[in-house]
Amino acid sequence: MSSKRTLAVALIGHGFMGRAHSNAWRQAPRFFDLPAELRLKTICGRDAAATRAAAQKLGWERGETEWQRTVADPEIDIIDICTPNDSHAEMAIAAAQAGKAILCEKPLARDMREGEAIWRAVRKARVANMICHNYRRIPAVVLAKEMIERGDLGDRLFHFRARYAQDWIVDPNFPLVWRLQRDIAGSGALGDIFSHVTDLARYLVGELSDVTAAQETFVKRRPFEKKTRGATKSRGLGKVEVDDAVVAIGRFRNGALASIEATRFAPGRKNSIQLEINGSDGSLVFDLEEMNRLRFFSRRDPAEAQGFRDIMVTEATHPYMANWWPPGHIIGYEHTFVHTIADFVQGVMQRKKVQPDFADGLETLRVLDAVQRSARTGRWIKL
Amino acid sequence: MSSKRTLAVALIGHGFMGRAHSNAWRQAPRFFDLPAELRLKTICGRDAAATRAAAQKLGWERGETEWQRTVADPEIDIIDICTPNDSHAEMAIAAAQAGKAILCEKPLARDMREGEAIWRAVRKARVANMICHNYRRIPAVVLAKEMIERGDLGDRLFHFRARYAQDWIVDPNFPLVWRLQRDIAGSGALGDIFSHVTDLARYLVGELSDVTAAQETFVKRRPFEKKTRGATKSRGLGKVEVDDAVVAIGRFRNGALASIEATRFAPGRKNSIQLEINGSDGSLVFDLEEMNRLRFFSRRDPAEAQGFRDIMVTEATHPYMANWWPPGHIIGYEHTFVHTIADFVQGVMQRKKVQPDFADGLETLRVLDAVQRSARTGRWIKL
Amino acid sequence: MSSKRTLAVALIGHGFMGRAHSNAWRQAPRFFDLPAELRLKTICGRDAAATRAAAQKLGWERGETEWQRTVADPEIDIIDICTPNDSHAEMAIAAAQAGKAILCEKPLARDMREGEAIWRAVRKARVANMICHNYRRIPAVVLAKEMIERGDLGDRLFHFRARYAQDWIVDPNFPLVWRLQRDIAGSGALGDIFSHVTDLARYLVGELSDVTAAQETFVKRRPFEKKTRGATKSRGLGKVEVDDAVVAIGRFRNGALASIEATRFAPGRKNSIQLEINGSDGSLVFDLEEMNRLRFFSRRDPAEAQGFRDIMVTEATHPYMANWWPPGHIIGYEHTFVHTIADFVQGVMQRKKVQPDFADGLETLRVLDAVQRSARTGRWIKL
Amino acid sequence: MSSKRTLAVALIGHGFMGRAHSNAWRQAPRFFDLPAELRLKTICGRDAAATRAAAQKLGWERGETEWQRTVADPEIDIIDICTPNDSHAEMAIAAAQAGKAILCEKPLARDMREGEAIWRAVRKARVANMICHNYRRIPAVVLAKEMIERGDLGDRLFHFRARYAQDWIVDPNFPLVWRLQRDIAGSGALGDIFSHVTDLARYLVGELSDVTAAQETFVKRRPFEKKTRGATKSRGLGKVEVDDAVVAIGRFRNGALASIEATRFAPGRKNSIQLEINGSDGSLVFDLEEMNRLRFFSRRDPAEAQGFRDIMVTEATHPYMANWWPPGHIIGYEHTFVHTIADFVQGVMQRKKVQPDFADGLETLRVLDAVQRSARTGRWIKL
Repeated sequence: MSSKRTLAVALIGHGFMGRAHSNAWRQAPRFFDLPAELRLKTICGRDAAATRAAAQKLGWERGETEWQRTVADPEIDIIDICTPNDSHAEMAIAAAQAGKAILCEKPLARDMREGEAIWRAVRKARVANMICHNYRRIPAVVLAKEMIERGDLGDRLFHFRARYAQDWIVDPNFPLVWRLQRDIAGSGALGDIFSHVTDLARYLVGELSDVTAAQETFVKRRPFEKKTRGATKSRGLGKVEVDDAVVAIGRFRNGALASIEATRFAPGRKNSIQLEINGSDGSLVFDLEEMNRLRFFSRRDPAEAQGFRDIMVTEATHPYMANWWPPGHIIGYEHTFVHTIADFVQGVMQRKKVQPDFADGLETLRVLDAVQRSARTGRWIKL
Repeated sequence: MSSKRTLAVALIGHGFMGRAHSNAWRQAPRFFDLPAELRLKTICGRDAAATRAAAQKLGWERGETEWQRTVADPEIDIIDICTPNDSHAEMAIAAAQAGKAILCEKPLARDMREGEAIWRAVRKARVANMICHNYRRIPAVVLAKEMIERGDLGDRLFHFRARYAQDWIVDPNFPLVWRLQRDIAGSGALGDIFSHVTDLARYLVGELSDVTAAQETFVKRRPFEKKTRGATKSRGLGKVEVDDAVVAIGRFRNGALASIEATRFAPGRKNSIQLEINGSDGSLVFDLEEMNRLRFFSRRDPAEAQGFRDIMVTEATHPYMANWWPPGHIIGYEHTFVHTIADFVQGVMQRKKVQPDFADGLETLRVLDAVQRSARTGRWIKL
Repeated sequence: MSSKRTLAVALIGHGFMGRAHSNAWRQAPRFFDLPAELRLKTICGRDAAATRAAAQKLGWERGETEWQRTVADPEIDIIDICTPNDSHAEMAIAAAQAGKAILCEKPLARDMREGEAIWRAVRKARVANMICHNYRRIPAVVLAKEMIERGDLGDRLFHFRARYAQDWIVDPNFPLVWRLQRDIAGSGALGDIFSHVTDLARYLVGELSDVTAAQETFVKRRPFEKKTRGATKSRGLGKVEVDDAVVAIGRFRNGALASIEATRFAPGRKNSIQLEINGSDGSLVFDLEEMNRLRFFSRRDPAEAQGFRDIMVTEATHPYMANWWPPGHIIGYEHTFVHTIADFVQGVMQRKKVQPDFADGLETLRVLDAVQRSARTGRWIKL
Repeated sequence: MSSKRTLAVALIGHGFMGRAHSNAWRQAPRFFDLPAELRLKTICGRDAAATRAAAQKLGWERGETEWQRTVADPEIDIIDICTPNDSHAEMAIAAAQAGKAILCEKPLARDMREGEAIWRAVRKARVANMICHNYRRIPAVVLAKEMIERGDLGDRLFHFRARYAQDWIVDPNFPLVWRLQRDIAGSGALGDIFSHVTDLARYLVGELSDVTAAQETFVKRRPFEKKTRGATKSRGLGKVEVDDAVVAIGRFRNGALASIEATRFAPGRKNSIQLEINGSDGSLVFDLEEMNRLRFFSRRDPAEAQGFRDIMVTEATHPYMANWWPPGHIIGYEHTFVHTIADFVQGVMQRKKVQPDFADGLETLRVLDAVQRSARTGRWIKL
């Protein structure tokens, strides 16, 4: 019926991210005019029954337990990697070698070494690649970017500050899930959520030039969960080898000061990114828990009527929003993935780079690496 | 593969509500464990090409231009009516006579007379029926209901106040769309949005006993839009015969005072329902523009630490939320329809009444009718 | 030392309002350049010891127990009436006859009849007179007035809505204080707090043309407090003959709709006035509990950056604020009285009318009277 | 009339702080039951006419131009130092030697060396001493302290973060006032406002153990103001030798992480302290621009009704508030000085240490010194 080319997709992983990406693959063509038809061919997981159930529930044609077979499938155009961090490198490199376009969940890898290997592989294979920092595609964040670029904050930026705060592991009896295991996750709050605010810093303000940081593990031993893979046992408890929180300060190349933090130990903060940027003519404030809003202070407003403007970013003129509902009808978390995938499909079809690509993923890893080294040595690290 | 029964659905209308309902029919089985498979068979519209395009975009097997044929289709189990208000009665009655389960957009009809005819038809046919007041299924609203029912606000309620405010027709050059034409819409802000807050009043507090009100049409003539059906012409402008705003006060049977308002003339209010309920032991506050939150004040909290609690209604323990994302990952407008349809499908399969049914729709029409009579006569109207 | 004339002041009453006014008389000359020196000569109360203590604590030269003697004192220029409502008429009339400038706490009197007598007396005596609606002198409210007058909301106003909500008598065991006794207070929430929001309505939008209302007394009997004067006894409890809450809707002469409410039964609302005004080009929102802020939405802002602007009304360019502290250093409740008295002293010295005068007080009584009659008869009352 | 002892006070300085302290000396006995009468004897300044005018306006018996004479005045009991930072040491030491009780504006001195000299002097003289960190006496801050101490946040604290942000010198043409001159002020944002949040960190959480920081001067040359004393001239502009902003991270002795910042370059932030503390059972959030509120999240609340509680700290049960107005009637900036002086007078009369004393002032200087050394060396500094 349609004369569009069809892109066949395979998704690896059916946990939290697998569900979010599946939804986005289903929804993107319903709300966006994509330049290709999408075929949700394969979802891939280790457990056969669970994967089969996921395929049915999430809308994929088939389940598959061997990711290598999936990557080798000549029908597949796009590999979407939603597995824990320890498998990103192996999968992404194989996918690149197989000539697939690749979307990969953040962080790109557990460390710089892995990240560089991935980046070499995709560059060599010249395949489309994108790291899924979905928060770049919150309409309010894109609006912030546009406002900064057209000079609404003035010609100088002074401060960028962001904190990503959650509270899901405050309870010391919360088990040692994979995200708390260093061999699987690479790091804790650092790779999982600090990476997001670092990406936003780079997206909105530019590259950091140097950084100093502290990391902390508040709860040092936790009970195993039944399905825990690996981890050093110790009297029924496992050692937590990743960070619970990280606080960092730094400088951007453009002279702005940075203050970036991430923690899983902030009771009441469920999935909070609080972000503020101060420039010579104004400020922007964003809070992920109110993600349909952007607050903007302009020194150019009439003197007696200046104030933070609470922009409800739901107008048809706002990024992405014409595809959804009328003004004031808010969107949610999952929509950021739909935007990501809509843009990725555009990029794949137009053979254009789509940001953030794996080079961005690698740059972010470079910052994370600097943070870790700084936390270990107590020194500022140049980037 | 599945042993579940399959329910075949037909949707009439592919405008704003048609898109929202289509999405919900697609998404409900992805996020909820429904007792039936859903088959999105037919979408129905007047224009053949547009309907065909809608079918493809929105995920229906086929488009159809004759709603009567759709209603007569023996394969169809559920008719979902998303057309302008003037067709609700005819369609709903035909669907009832054809033995279909019916979901109908609010308001149930243009007036009491039509509403009663619909109600008689479904009662006679004993078909499942539901009026789509989707805001009843905002998790925060359901939580509010649960808190009131278990006595968190105490044993007496004093005040219910709600305002539904929008601003989309403040511009006097905004055209005379169908929602502003009396013969099609029946009324203006009254049927469109006052009906929603009336429904919430009835859901959360109970039946009103009497009411007095004022209505106003601030902009009395507007330009026609090209596709305008009907409407009295007058020097290139059409007369606006519906209300732009309605303000009402009243009493509930349980003794609480009501203050209910709706307006399309509140600049900056895009899709705002601000609602407050005061009881002997506490208060609840809700704002649709922050629909993932419920504010709760309890006089039972320790004296020096009392304050409105800003509950982020995104925990797995909150209504519907276990089906979506982790805490703090917010949902949006469209999800309210997914919840509605998930519950409706449950009701259809279990042959249980699911609220709000057409009797509720009729009760709400009774309130709207009282409001109109009061606005005309200047008298309190008993309900 | 100073060549300014000195105005001698007498204050009648040393309860809550007596304290607030005393503070204002002391503070006004410290922060404002007044055209006269102020001499705080006499404070007047019924109980000799308490009045003497008040004089010392609050900074008055002497205490006095006979208000008639105070009014007759030829040295006194200004009489400030802070007593319960039942004595306003007698005192104000006597003060007028004695040629004193008069500041009187709201409401002007218990009812229209008393209010008219006062108004006749001051008009005849041609004395300076002011009703103390202190909220008119919140900087944010004055800014709102200025913005409306210069057209920031456009050329039409559509809606005024305000609610004054408190919760201090939700507990049914709270005693029958004078504010709950009809013979002393005249009315309940109506005269005490509904009067304030009515005054704000008149100040900001203009005169009302008609109104309909409901009143309610939720707790009908309350225990006496020891010092209760009068009140019908009934089995150890006294009958509450005043309203706990009032809800009203109406119309302004300029065509705007009004929604005005007051309640003492809103748990969590301590001293809350929430006010919103919608006009053809924008909206204003104010909340007394955040009285240093004014929220302003302008349809004239660039389309994609519109939003409610949260103006912190603490700039030197804002009304009254140059007399206080640097930007961002907030002022509190008591400052509104300082502003009131600074303006009153200006008016007295310049022999200029200073708003709101007793004519305003009377107009507000006229609205309260209409509300009461409407609540009794169920009819709209023309003003 | 009163049998209380009278304390005679002399205030040095009549700028912004001189006005704020004068107000507090006048108001404290009006609202608090002090154990002494206060005599506002002398206000001291360099300019005779200005000082005389200040005496009259601010309520002092006399003006004086020689602070040494004031300090030597045997009638004076209390010296209150409100001058620029470069004179604190000389004055405080002289006052101590003269046996006076001393209240001194923050920072205690320009640097550690001066601060230590002051501390030695008061310790030797055994005179009452207090550093005026007025924000310790915001009722919401005291409530936070009480809640932390009684364990409302649990037995462990994880994070303290505070930012003091202003915007008054964002304009590069803002002149080189004394607060921007190193020889007078000692430092910029650091001593002026970072000192406040450091004091709050120490008050609420405890002593810091080590810290690393960055400082920045965004605008490096500014025009002189007419009355500028000193400063290196350079082509009509003066060099800004103090910091515009400081960002720091650190650790507390109790294991909590610290993130402390101060900036004068945050457009829209007028006098903003945003503070958050996370503990094992809850979190506290405070914002100086909404200083009558404290937000509190408790993990002990029922699971489905947890949320940040917005405590309006205006109840009679809240610190200091019984002395002011009924609940919901907010207080402002100046009240924090009234509380400070009321407590200081108590301390002086009861010969009890009153926090924060000069030892606290010195500890805070130690942190500022560490911050400066860290900013210079790029190293963590132990405290």
